[in-house]
This record gives sequence, C-alpha cells and structure tokens, in this order.
Amino acid sequence: MSSPNARPLGVALIGYEFMGRAHSQAWRTVGAAFEVPPIERRVIVGRDEQKVAAAATRLGWQSHATDWREVLEREDVDIIDICTPGFLHAEIAIAALEAGKHVLCEKPIANDTAEAERMVEAARRAQERGQVAALGHTYRRVAALAQARALVESGRLGRLLQARASYLQDWLVDENAPMSWRLRRETAGSGALGDIGSHAIDQIQFLTGQRATSVRGRLETVVPERPGPDGPERVTVDDAAWATLELEGGAIASIEASRLAGGRKNQLVIELYGTEGSLRFDLEALNELWFLDATVPAAEQGFTRILVTEPDHPYVEGWWPPGHTLGWENAFTNQAYDLLRAITEDVPFSPDFADGLALQRVLDAIIASDAADGASVQVP
Amino acid sequence: MSSPNARPLGVALIGYEFMGRAHSQAWRTVGAAFEVPPIERRVIVGRDEQKVAAAATRLGWQSHATDWREVLEREDVDIIDICTPGFLHAEIAIAALEAGKHVLCEKPIANDTAEAERMVEAARRAQERGQVAALGHTYRRVAALAQARALVESGRLGRLLQARASYLQDWLVDENAPMSWRLRRETAGSGALGDIGSHAIDQIQFLTGQRATSVRGRLETVVPERPGPDGPERVTVDDAAWATLELEGGAIASIEASRLAGGRKNQLVIELYGTEGSLRFDLEALNELWFLDATVPAAEQGFTRILVTEPDHPYVEGWWPPGHTLGWENAFTNQAYDLLRAITEDVPFSPDFADGLALQRVLDAIIASDAADGASVQVP
Amino acid sequence: MSSPNARPLGVALIGYEFMGRAHSQAWRTVGAAFEVPPIERRVIVGRDEQKVAAAATRLGWQSHATDWREVLEREDVDIIDICTPGFLHAEIAIAALEAGKHVLCEKPIANDTAEAERMVEAARRAQERGQVAALGHTYRRVAALAQARALVESGRLGRLLQARASYLQDWLVDENAPMSWRLRRETAGSGALGDIGSHAIDQIQFLTGQRATSVRGRLETVVPERPGPDGPERVTVDDAAWATLELEGGAIASIEASRLAGGRKNQLVIELYGTEGSLRFDLEALNELWFLDATVPAAEQGFTRILVTEPDHPYVEGWWPPGHTLGWENAFTNQAYDLLRAITEDVPFSPDFADGLALQRVLDAIIASDAADGASVQVP
Amino acid sequence: MSSPNARPLGVALIGYEFMGRAHSQAWRTVGAAFEVPPIERRVIVGRDEQKVAAAATRLGWQSHATDWREVLEREDVDIIDICTPGFLHAEIAIAALEAGKHVLCEKPIANDTAEAERMVEAARRAQERGQVAALGHTYRRVAALAQARALVESGRLGRLLQARASYLQDWLVDENAPMSWRLRRETAGSGALGDIGSHAIDQIQFLTGQRATSVRGRLETVVPERPGPDGPERVTVDDAAWATLELEGGAIASIEASRLAGGRKNQLVIELYGTEGSLRFDLEALNELWFLDATVPAAEQGFTRILVTEPDHPYVEGWWPPGHTLGWENAFTNQAYDLLRAITEDVPFSPDFADGLALQRVLDAIIASDAADGASVQVP
Repeated sequence: MSSPNARPLGVALIGYEFMGRAHSQAWRTVGAAFEVPPIERRVIVGRDEQKVAAAATRLGWQSHATDWREVLEREDVDIIDICTPGFLHAEIAIAALEAGKHVLCEKPIANDTAEAERMVEAARRAQERGQVAALGHTYRRVAALAQARALVESGRLGRLLQARASYLQDWLVDENAPMSWRLRRETAGSGALGDIGSHAIDQIQFLTGQRATSVRGRLETVVPERPGPDGPERVTVDDAAWATLELEGGAIASIEASRLAGGRKNQLVIELYGTEGSLRFDLEALNELWFLDATVPAAEQGFTRILVTEPDHPYVEGWWPPGHTLGWENAFTNQAYDLLRAITEDVPFSPDFADGLALQRVLDAIIASDAADGASVQVP
Repeated sequence: MSSPNARPLGVALIGYEFMGRAHSQAWRTVGAAFEVPPIERRVIVGRDEQKVAAAATRLGWQSHATDWREVLEREDVDIIDICTPGFLHAEIAIAALEAGKHVLCEKPIANDTAEAERMVEAARRAQERGQVAALGHTYRRVAALAQARALVESGRLGRLLQARASYLQDWLVDENAPMSWRLRRETAGSGALGDIGSHAIDQIQFLTGQRATSVRGRLETVVPERPGPDGPERVTVDDAAWATLELEGGAIASIEASRLAGGRKNQLVIELYGTEGSLRFDLEALNELWFLDATVPAAEQGFTRILVTEPDHPYVEGWWPPGHTLGWENAFTNQAYDLLRAITEDVPFSPDFADGLALQRVLDAIIASDAADGASVQVP
Repeated sequence: MSSPNARPLGVALIGYEFMGRAHSQAWRTVGAAFEVPPIERRVIVGRDEQKVAAAATRLGWQSHATDWREVLEREDVDIIDICTPGFLHAEIAIAALEAGKHVLCEKPIANDTAEAERMVEAARRAQERGQVAALGHTYRRVAALAQARALVESGRLGRLLQARASYLQDWLVDENAPMSWRLRRETAGSGALGDIGSHAIDQIQFLTGQRATSVRGRLETVVPERPGPDGPERVTVDDAAWATLELEGGAIASIEASRLAGGRKNQLVIELYGTEGSLRFDLEALNELWFLDATVPAAEQGFTRILVTEPDHPYVEGWWPPGHTLGWENAFTNQAYDLLRAITEDVPFSPDFADGLALQRVLDAIIASDAADGASVQVP
Repeated sequence: MSSPNARPLGVALIGYEFMGRAHSQAWRTVGAAFEVPPIERRVIVGRDEQKVAAAATRLGWQSHATDWREVLEREDVDIIDICTPGFLHAEIAIAALEAGKHVLCEKPIANDTAEAERMVEAARRAQERGQVAALGHTYRRVAALAQARALVESGRLGRLLQARASYLQDWLVDENAPMSWRLRRETAGSGALGDIGSHAIDQIQFLTGQRATSVRGRLETVVPERPGPDGPERVTVDDAAWATLELEGGAIASIEASRLAGGRKNQLVIELYGTEGSLRFDLEALNELWFLDATVPAAEQGFTRILVTEPDHPYVEGWWPPGHTLGWENAFTNQAYDLLRAITEDVPFSPDFADGLALQRVLDAIIASDAADGASVQVP
C-alpha cells in the first residue's frame, strides 16, 4: 500500500474520554482488520497529567502529553486525531493543518459557523499540500449505512420522494436529573439538535446525496428548569427538536431529535422512500438494513431484513464470517481504515470540513427558523 | 340491558362502499360478540338503485332505498349510520338528528368548519332530547389503543413529555398513478393531512387526553402533476404533511402523514413518552401494544410486547381466547357496541361531534400555518 | 354460481361453544365477503335447550334443536357443520353423510383411528353421490399460509431441505391450575400433541405437499399431578410433545407442541427451508409471511416481511384494502367460502376425511414411538 | 489487582485462523476495556512460517514460532491460548498444563471422550498447582446471555418447565457446494451437532444450571453426496441434528442444529420457559434479551426487549454508554477478562475442562441414541 521502506505513520490522539476511548480502539484494531500501512500510536494528549498518563497505559499509547501544541511539533507524528470538546476543534485543527499534519476531527466541526469557515479555509490550503482533513461522522462507516448508501447510489430507490430521520435518547426523562454544563448554551453550544439531530441530518444528506436547501425548525425545552446546587436553574438548550428539510431534489425530510424519549437509548432511525424502493435503519440494531424493492411483484413485496454481515457488504471483509455481528465500535475502525486509505492512496475522505460547515449551516438555519416562529429559512 | 318488551333498534346505513361494508360487518356481528339489545338492519341507502339493491342482499340489510330523506321518516329506524363522502355528512346528520334519530357519522366530521359547527349545534340540541350523536373515529376502538388509553389514564406514563404519530401509506408512490377526484381540493377537501393525518391527531388527543393548543404545519405536493385523460393535470391537495402540536400539558407531538411511503400500506404508528413509561403502537400489527415501564430496574427495562388478546383487555371479552388475534374490522364491531351502550345505557360516546369540530380546527390551523410559511397558529 | 332459482343452501350447526361461535361468525359473514350462493342459517343444535336457544338468538340462527338426528331429517338443511367434542364426530358425520348432507367436521377428525377409518369410508361413498365431506383444519385458510402454500407449489423454495413447526401455548404453566377433563386421556383423547401438535403437523404436510413416512416422538407430562376436588390427581395426557418426521422427499420436519411455554398464547410457528428459498410464519402475527428468496444477490438477501393484505393474496379480495389486517376469525369465513365452492362448483375441498385419517396415523405413530422409547415408527 | 511489581503476564496464541483472529482481538483490547493486570502478547504459533509471521505483524504479536513445544518452554509465557483444530487440543493442552502454564482451550474440548478425560485429569492436577484450565465456550460471555443466566440464577423464571435451543446456519444449502474436510468424519470429528449443536447444549446447561441426564437424538445427512475433485463423494457427518434432553430438574430441552437453513447465517436461538418467567435470545441480535415476567398482571404481560447495554448488565461497564451496541467479538474480550481474573484473583472460570467432558458425553449420548434408532440413552 505504501512504499516498503516508509516509516510507520505516527498518530496522536487529543482527548481520552468517551470519544478518545472509541478512537483508541479503532487505532488499536485497524491493522488487524484491514490491510493498511503500519501505524504507531505515538501519543495521547490531555490536560490532566495523571489521568492522561493512566489513559496512555490503559488505551495503549506509547506516550502522553499535556500540551497539544508540543505534539504538533513532533516529527514522528503524522495524524492528529481530535476528540476534544467542540469549542477546541477549530484552534487545534487549524494549527495541526498548518503544522502539516493530517487531521481527523470529531463532529461537530466547531461551535459556530465562523470557526467552521476558518477550518474549511485551513483545510483547503492543506489539501493543496496533500494533507487530509477528515470529519468524524462515524456512522457513515456503519456497514449497514454504507450499504444503504450503495443501494441509493446504484439507483435501487429510484427518485427520492420522502425521508425521515429521528434520533431519540432518554437521559433527560427524569425531570429531576441535575443541571449540568451540557444543558447550558454557553458551555454546550447546543442541545439535542446539535448533539444528535446533527447525526440524523448528516445521514439524510449522506444517504440521499442531496443537500438541504431550506428548512423549518422547532426547538423546545420541555423541562425548563433542573435542580442545581443552589436551587433550580434554567436549562438553556433544547431537549428536543423537530425540522423539515427541503432537499435539492424536491423531497422533504423530517428530522426529530430528543433526549426525552423513555426507553430509546440510542435510537437513530432513518427511512428513505423512493419511487422504486425504500430503506429503513435503526442504530439500536445496526447490523440490519431493511430494504423494500418496489419492482418485485406485489404479492412478494415487503421490507427485507438484510443482515449486513456478508463479504459483499462494505467493510465486512475486515471482520467476521456471515452472521457474526458487529458492534457500535467497529465503525470507528472502519473510519480509521478509510482515513489511512485517504492518506496513502489518495482516496477522497468524506465528509470533509466543507461538509461539516454545510451541516452547521443547516443546523443554524433550523435555529433561525425556530427563532422566526417556524418560518422557512434558506440554507446558505 | 333495555326493557324486555322494547322493540329492536332499527338501523339504517347510508353508503355501501368501503366504509359501508365495514359498518355492515359491524352491525351483522355486534350481537354475537357482545350483549346488546336486539337490532334490526332495516335499510341501506344509496343513489344507484341497482347497486344498492345488490349491496342490501350481499351485506345483509332487510331493504334498500335511494333517498335518505325518506328513511329519516321511517318509524322503525332509530339509528342513522352515515358512511357517505364527507361533503354530505352535515346535511344528512343534521336532518337525522332533527328527525329524532341517533346518528353515527364517519370521520371526517365535515368538509369545513362552518358545517361542523352547525352539526355540533344540532347535536347539542339532540343530546338534550336524549339522542346520541357519535363520530366514527373507529381506531379508538382497536383493543390495543383502548388499552393504551387505559394505561395513560391510570397514570402509568407519568407526565407526558413527548408524542409522535405518523400515518404512512404508499398508493401515490407511482408518479404515473392517474389523476382522480381524490387529488383535487374541490372534490376531496383535503389530501393526506385530512384523510389519514386526522387519525394520527385524533389518536394523540385521545390517548393523551390533551388538546392541541397551537400548531406549526407543512403540506407538500411532492408529485405536483399526474396524468389525466387529456394530459397532465395539477394535483391540488397535499400528498404528505408534517406538523408539530403543542399540547395542553406542554409536551410537543409530531405528526406526519404521507401517501408516498413505499411499502407502508396502512402504517399508523403512535409513540408516547412520559416520565414513568412509554408506549408504541403500529396499526399494521394492531394486536400488539408496546409498553415500557420506566419504574422497573434498568437491567430489566425495555419495551414489552403485549399481545392485546387477554380477557382483561378492552373489548376482548366479546371475541376469542388469548392469542387468537383480531383484525382491522373488529374495531367497527366494538364501535357499534359502544354506540348501542350509549343509546341504551346512557354511557357517553366519545368522540362526539364537538370532538370532531375540535379536530377540524387543528387541521385548519395546520393548513393556516403552512399558508403562513410554517409560523405557529393557535387552535381556537 | 348456482342456478338462479335454486333455493338457498340450508346450514345446520352442531355445537355452540368456542368453535360454534367461530363457525357462526363464518356463516354470518361469508356472503358479504365473497360471491357465494345464498345460504340460510337454519338451525343450531345443542343438548342444553336453554343454552342453545340463547345461542341461536345471539349467534343468529333461525331456530335451535337439541337432537341432531332430527336435524338430519330436515329437507331444508343441506350442510351439517360439526363443532362438537371430538368423540362425537364419527357418529354424527357418518349419519349426516348417510342422510345425504354435505359435512364440515372440525378437527380432529375423530378420537381414534378406527372411527376415522369408518368416516373415510362413509365419505368415499358420499363423494360418489356428489356430497362434500370437509375437515376443518381452518389454518390452511389463513391468507398468509395459503400464500405460503402458493409459493411452495410454484417452486419458489426449490427442493425442501428441512422444516420446523412448533405450537406453543401457556395455559398449563401454573402448576396449580386445576385438574380438568382435558387432562384425562379417557375424556380428552390426547394432550398437547393431538390438540395443537396436530395443527403443526397438518401445516407441514399441507405446505410442503409431502406426507410423513416415519416418525420419532416423545411425549411428556412435565406436571404429573394437578389439584382435583379431593386432592391431587394424575394428569394422563402429555402437556408437551416433540417429534421428528421424515417426509416423502427426504427432508426432516421437527415438531414441538407445548402448553407450558409462558407468554406464548397461541404461537404456531412454521419454518420451511428449501434450496432456493425459505419461509417463516407465526400465528400470533398472522398477517405476515416472511419469505427469503435465495436467488437474490447475497448483499440484498434476507427475510422479507410480506404483509398478506394485497389483492393478489389468497382470500384477500373478499376483505379490505392493503394494510387493513385480518384476524384469526377470518380464516373461518374463508373456509366457508371454499366449502360452498366445493358444493356448488365442484372445486375439491382439502383437507378431506382421508387427509384427517392420514394425520391421525401420524399422531398414532408418534405416540407409538414414544411408547417404544423414541424408536422410529413407520406411518402406515 | 496483581502485586504492583509483578511482571506482565505473557500470552502465547496457537493458531491464527478465524479463532486466532478473534482471540487476538480479545488480547489486544482487554486491557482497554477492563481493569486487568498488564499482559504481553508474546508469541503466535503456526506451522507455516511465512503465514504465521504475517499473522504476528497483522494481529499484533511480539514474535512468532512454528513449534508450540518450544513456546511451552518460554519463561516469559504464562498463558497458552489454544485455537488449533480440535484434534490437537488434547496434546497441546496437556503439555501446556504440565509445563505449568495457564490454558485457554477453544471448544470443542477434544475429538473424543478418551482425550477429554485425559485433559480433565491433567487439568485437575494443574488446578491443584494453582493453574487455570479454561474452555472457550465464549457465548457464555455474550452480555445478554450472562444477563439471562443472572435472571435464572436469581429465580426470576421460577421452576424450569421447558427449554428450546436451535442453532441454524445455511452454508450447506447449496446442494452443489463442494466436498471438504469438514464433511468427513475422519477429519472433522462431527458435523452440525458437534460444531454448533454443542453451543446450543452448552447454553441450555449453562443458563439453566442443570445437566442433561438422558437424551434422544437424531442425525441426518440430508445431502448425502457432494462433488469432489474426482466425482461425487459421500458426506460422512450430519448436516442437521435434533435431540431432546431430559434435564436434572425434570424439564425437557429440545435441541436443533442445521447447516441447511437458508437465510439463517448464525442463528442460535434459546428459549427458557419457567413457572414465573420466560426468556428468549437470538445470537443474530445479540444485544437483545427478551424476558417475560409472569408475575406482572396479565393485561401488561409480554416479552420485554431488554437492550443489554446498561451499566448494570454484565461486562457492559467495560464498553460504551447505553444503546451503543456490542458485536460478536466483544464476548472474546469479556472471556479474556474473566480468564485474567481467574488467574490473578482466584475467581473460578466456568466452563472448565470437566464441563467440556460432560458436554462431550451429552454429544456422545445423542450419537448413540441415533445409532439406536432414537431410543433414550443415559448420559454417564
């Protein structure tokens, strides 16, 4: 894949919490699952020295550091994988790209559009230098969703008539769940819409291959106050959001995101309806893709439960025999594989920062629509 | 139930198409399923003498007639069951009520709000005379939905946080499906919103026991032209609709109706999310109710598939042993049972015409919101 | 269908309990659902005059009687529908056939093979006289199972490799459920095997079109004693049964029947596996048929959930539009329709008494195998 | 967990094919998922030097070797993980135990009972010296099955009345699939029964905590010949098997294993029915456990779909937040975790070699029963 005497690609991971753990698992396993150039897990970065040292040991990194700027200067580091909170993405990603590194940045791209625009500009310049700037909308690498995209791309759905996506969780169902930084606009940036609604919208645009051109949106904070240390505090982000998106091709996609849906732990459901076929996916059962082929005679028509574990399915060759299901984490390994291919084989990586900016603009438009009492807002 | 020497209640059915067939089945079977006063299926009414005569024979009515006004004068007719197209509802229902008859009127209550208001006024007067004016939102009598209402009413869901209802069909997926009267506003009154979205909204209000206070809506005609006899014609009703409803208690309900969802034949899905429990129902599998009890320990929590065929479930006593499932039609029999109880036992029948008017106002508000580019509209 | 001036076919129903109610529903609705010759529900027969009189009123029969022999003499009765306990089947059916009547006899055909053989002989003679002798394995008329048969018959499964059928109920899970006549061999004839296992075996033979040639069986009475009025009594029928059947074509079918499967209310599950396709059906969700077409490319293969409510599906033309599901009871109406077609159009009705005898011989062989500690037993 | 200055535990893996890959993934990830003592992946062993060298690089082992006997002599190796074909298990495991190593041996324990007995004896001696001899029935570490066992153990099912387990695959559906070593008794030892039926039986015994005391069995080779290089060859192992097991507590478990079930890729389904509750599991959807609590009121009773991703569920603490599902491979990491706990914390590891021998005796009894035309055979 790479020239035989090239040195291994060095990876640095910034962040060691939930996403840091998931990305570590990916870097740890990608070489076993797929044929990729050699990599070295050089360094993991975090502000708390004790914690990041422990993380390095536990997650399998050669070293740790507390200052990401120093890491950017290391010659033996080629890839900067950014798993920090969103408000740090822009600063680190731009610096890393300017330092000549390839970058994988977790979603959301940034806390606001201005930041995202600067990131896109930095990525544009870096790409001209042969660097990769990748955005971590990892669900695009769930095998069933990659297979869904393949079906759409090959025309099996005909012309898209309608789409639906909902992302439901339930960790705010308890009305007495305490106030936290994730429920304040200043610290969290956004609520259900930005956190999980963004996945729903990304999937709609990814699967259909169509951008949203205008939106109508609604945000609600159904539980407006939650207990803080000194009494009730005001929740300043949405705990549920709804939108309708007009897509380029004329179809409408409905979007729903919620943290109030009791029993829905991580339920991203996507449905696509075309003139010749339909698709359904549920992240809580991510090995299954439901496909309806409308060209089959009516008496035999229906949704087919495809267990996406066949060698012909995307990414599955790297894993196990048919019927041996994959988990949530494998998509991160698939993502690392695609990133390494992008770096060494010049295969474009999607989504890039421009896709992230475009998504951010859809989210902004939804917020603007809600602020305008639901009126339609064009996506720039 | 009724006084022993009372003569049987005479029923007249107006209309013999799809709904006429379903109502006939109900009148034919209600006495076997439930303990009700004796009834006689006196007369079926339709404009085409030959067809209505054949329908009388086939559907088991003692006689037929072509003029509903004559039927209103018959002494041996006590109940007028109106299964005509919606634009005739007001005229017939008001006349029947004024003639002293009990009335069961299929949904939608009327073609417009003015008509519905007159019907409500006629019903109010009739109710004072002891007559029943019932509206045929039959799905309220699907056993699983009646059981769902019972669970909500007994507090098993706690405080409602969020609701979702979608009614998806697919008979317009074919872009070359021909133009018809059902796709013209003048003749059909409305499209997907009024036809099936109305069921979704009725269920939300019925199950939660909460009225919508304001709405935001969107209607779309995704396939704007369809082939007519002399070339393409313009479709003037919506083929899909979306809305968010603010309910009295503060929760938001999302609504979606579509005739473009390939493979969804008659899929009314309802989800309710409360602080202590959640519910899910799908009309395509109408014997099942999915209930999550959030008070159960987390390690054992999940959606429970209740097969609603137990003697303790609503209406099931009239039917078969556990596990012997019911079909779509049985709800009509359950409805006839409730109507007869309302007439002879003074048990209120819900929904009444006022409920139908209230629902009509929600639909109007959604249409008004769409006309206002999605802005919120109060429900009067 | 019949000659225009023929008098209506008169039906007599013997039995008014569970099966009597289901058959009454069928006779009451068949003329509305399907184009059939006129019928009259002449008389319902039962030993308890008061109860049968009430049943006549409630279930819609013109008269009642307490002596089935008298009814056989009535000129205006053409069809004898036998819904009595099994030990009466032979006597009534043979007499009815000898009286020149058409007969529909509920399953099981008889309490023992000798009786069944006499019934087959009587049916043979009657058939020569143009009479119909039909056996009520009603599940063959569930639309999804009829569709399953159509798929097998048209070769969509290729060569059968394996079959599975289980019929699970749970009404004996409670170890303290009282002793009853159904749990004594003298009165009940058989336990789970004969009562519900017989359905499983009938479906296997019906769907595959193959007879069992040899069997191995096991019967168990897991709860051997149950409380009687004067203390514990011994249960003398099986509460669960297992068998493997070798079919004519060489494939093995596994059979399981149980009254001990908590939560399974009426779960008859059938799976067929062939070289070119597979099928799955579950009676608790009887509108669905799951079909796998093994000729589809692997990446799109899987079980397709066919909602058997399309006009192209068997019997559905008589009922409702797509997506409007049917219940358990509709199969009885479908059965009445096929019986009337057999009488008036000379379409053979399957299963006939010979099929019932053949099934009885399979059940006998399973019992004999269990008695022989599980050794193989040929089916005569 | 271990003393702070202990050196890391050295692991040697023998075998690099499918199971070798899965075990490598486990050793690679166990330290990140769980708090375990440090381990070193010292050496991977295989006969083909070139292939095993490549495997070492790809799967992340420090070195490779072609002679497992040499590896047993290494001081820096503490754990021998045996992933070879079954006929080598006994020789390697006994030698490893005698060399003082801890052993993890993939299932099946051995090719025949005599071998297994010698392994048990070696393990007994080794256990006295403080060594661990573990058998790799990995499915016991699927979180949902571990949770199922916890529910049974805590009495939530009451007394067991009945159990069912089927393991269906489809890789022999094609009648022209070629002959191979896996289809010859000499090389494969057994067919569907030993390969996958053994999992079904192990689960029954594991979940219920009850051993089989007697069995009746049936083995079939439905496709008796398959194409070899020089024409048709005779298949000498079963391609499907059925058995009923009498369990210690008196309940019957039915077992079915097949390689002929089209569309079933890896479908191990287990059902347990007790007096107070029921369970269902399907390996193709391994994050779900279906539990029926029979003590709930009938109107709310049904199978609950528990998504086994909560912190309270077994092993889940090592992985991801609720709703982030696990794959087939994670159970191997859970197994490595339990093995390390057994070594360092003296927590017994189950199953051990004696469990493997006991399972082998059940399989032998089934084969003996089939040879005796299905008659009951006691399990020694």
